[in-house]
Amino acid sequence: MQYVKIKDAVVEQIESGLLSPRQKLPSERKLADSFNTTRVTLREALSLLESEGRIYREDRRGWFISPQPLKYDPTQTLNFTNLALAQKRTPLTELLAAKGILANKQAASLLGLQPFSDVYRVDRVRYLENRPVAFVTKYIRPELLPNLLDFDLSQSLTDIYRDKFGVVYQKIRYRISTSSLLADIAQALRATSGTPAMVIERLNYNQHGELIDCDIEYWRHDAISVESIAQLNG
Amino acid sequence: MQYVKIKDAVVEQIESGLLSPRQKLPSERKLADSFNTTRVTLREALSLLESEGRIYREDRRGWFISPQPLKYDPTQTLNFTNLALAQKRTPLTELLAAKGILANKQAASLLGLQPFSDVYRVDRVRYLENRPVAFVTKYIRPELLPNLLDFDLSQSLTDIYRDKFGVVYQKIRYRISTSSLLADIAQALRATSGTPAMVIERLNYNQHGELIDCDIEYWRHDAISVESIAQLNG
Repeated sequence: MQYVKIKDAVVEQIESGLLSPRQKLPSERKLADSFNTTRVTLREALSLLESEGRIYREDRRGWFISPQPLKYDPTQTLNFTNLALAQKRTPLTELLAAKGILANKQAASLLGLQPFSDVYRVDRVRYLENRPVAFVTKYIRPELLPNLLDFDLSQSLTDIYRDKFGVVYQKIRYRISTSSLLADIAQALRATSGTPAMVIERLNYNQHGELIDCDIEYWRHDAISVESIAQLNG
Repeated sequence: MQYVKIKDAVVEQIESGLLSPRQKLPSERKLADSFNTTRVTLREALSLLESEGRIYREDRRGWFISPQPLKYDPTQTLNFTNLALAQKRTPLTELLAAKGILANKQAASLLGLQPFSDVYRVDRVRYLENRPVAFVTKYIRPELLPNLLDFDLSQSLTDIYRDKFGVVYQKIRYRISTSSLLADIAQALRATSGTPAMVIERLNYNQHGELIDCDIEYWRHDAISVESIAQLNG
C-alpha cells in the first residue's frame, strides 16, 4: 500500500538523521507534492507515523518529528522532575488548579470514598523542552494532609508530603491503558481531539499501607515509553 | 461536539448493561439513523469509542462491544494460558510458524547478535474466547536450546524450556509502548490496518543471567490492561 511506503520513507529519514527531533514537517500540500501522492494518501501515512509515535501534531501548528520518549519506570522514583533530569531532559510543571471539591464518580471509585466526600483535586501539566506531554489529575484524601492547599503546589508534591507531613509513598498500584486526548485535556497538551494517549492510573499508599491519593495521567503516547525490569521468583 | 455526545450515549448503554460484551453493533447506516446524525459524525464517534477501548472492529464483519481487557502483570507469571484461565477466560494459542532464520535487524538489535546470526523465530497468535487478541513473535538464541524446533511449539514454550532444557526465566526487561496493527499482523488479528495496538517487548534472562530470548507482542489495545503493584524502597 502506497501510504505504508511513504511512512517507511519518512522513518528512514528520521533514523538516518535527515529529520531531527522537534523539526517541523513541511505543509501537507508540499509533502503530498514531494511524495507525488494525493492529500488523502499522505494523511493516511501521517496518521500511521503518528500512531507509531514518530511524529506528533500541534493544533493549528502542524506536524513535528517526535523526540525520544521519556523512559518511565513505574517501580522506581515517581518524581517527574528528577526522572526527566536524569535523562538529560528539560522538565517543567504547570499548576492549572488546586482546590477542595466533592468527590466525583472517578475520585470516589479510585479512592474508595462515599460520593460527595471532600477531596483535594490538583491538575497539572508536565512539559519536556517546553512541549506539553502529560496532563495529570491528582485526587487526594484530605485527612492525612490537612491544609495541603496552603502550600505552593507548583512544587514537587512528594517533597511537600515528606517535608511537611512526614508522608512517603511506599506502595503503588498502577494500571496502564491506551485512550485518546479529548476536550480540555487535548487543549492543554496543544493536541487535536482524538490524538492517541497512554493513560497511567496510580493508587499511592503511604508507609502505613493507607491509600493517600491517586493520579490519572494522560500522556501524549509518543512522549513516553514504559520500561522496567522484573525479577521473577520461582 | 456531537460525536462526543454519541460516544457518551453508547458508553452509558454499555455501562448499564444494555449492550453486552462481544455483541455486534447495527450497521453504520442504521446507527446513524438512530442517532439522527450523519455517517461522518457517526464514524468519528465510533473511532473515539475504539480509541477508548469500548468497541472493536473485525475486518469486513463490523463493530463489536469489547469484552473486559485481560489484566496483565509483567512482574508475574508469563504463561498466557494460565493468566487467562485465572481470570476465567478461554485462551487458545495458534502456532503460525516456527523456523530457524538468519537474524534480521530487529532480532539482532534486541538479542545483541551479529547480523546474520542463527536464531529461531516462532510466530503465534493468542486468542480469548475465539477472538484473536495478540500477535507474538519470539526470537530465540539457539545455543542454550538446541533442537527446540523438534518439539510441539503450539504448547507452552516456558513448559518446554523448563522440562526439556532446565531453563527458566528469572529476569525480564520489558518495554510498553503504543502503535498500530498493519499488514500481516492486522490480518492475523482480523483487524483493519491502522487499528490501535499496545506493544510489549520483553527480553528474557535465565537463572544464570543469560539473555535467552525476546518477545514482541502486538495486542489489540482494548484486549489488555497492564496492572501491577510496586513496592518502593526508601
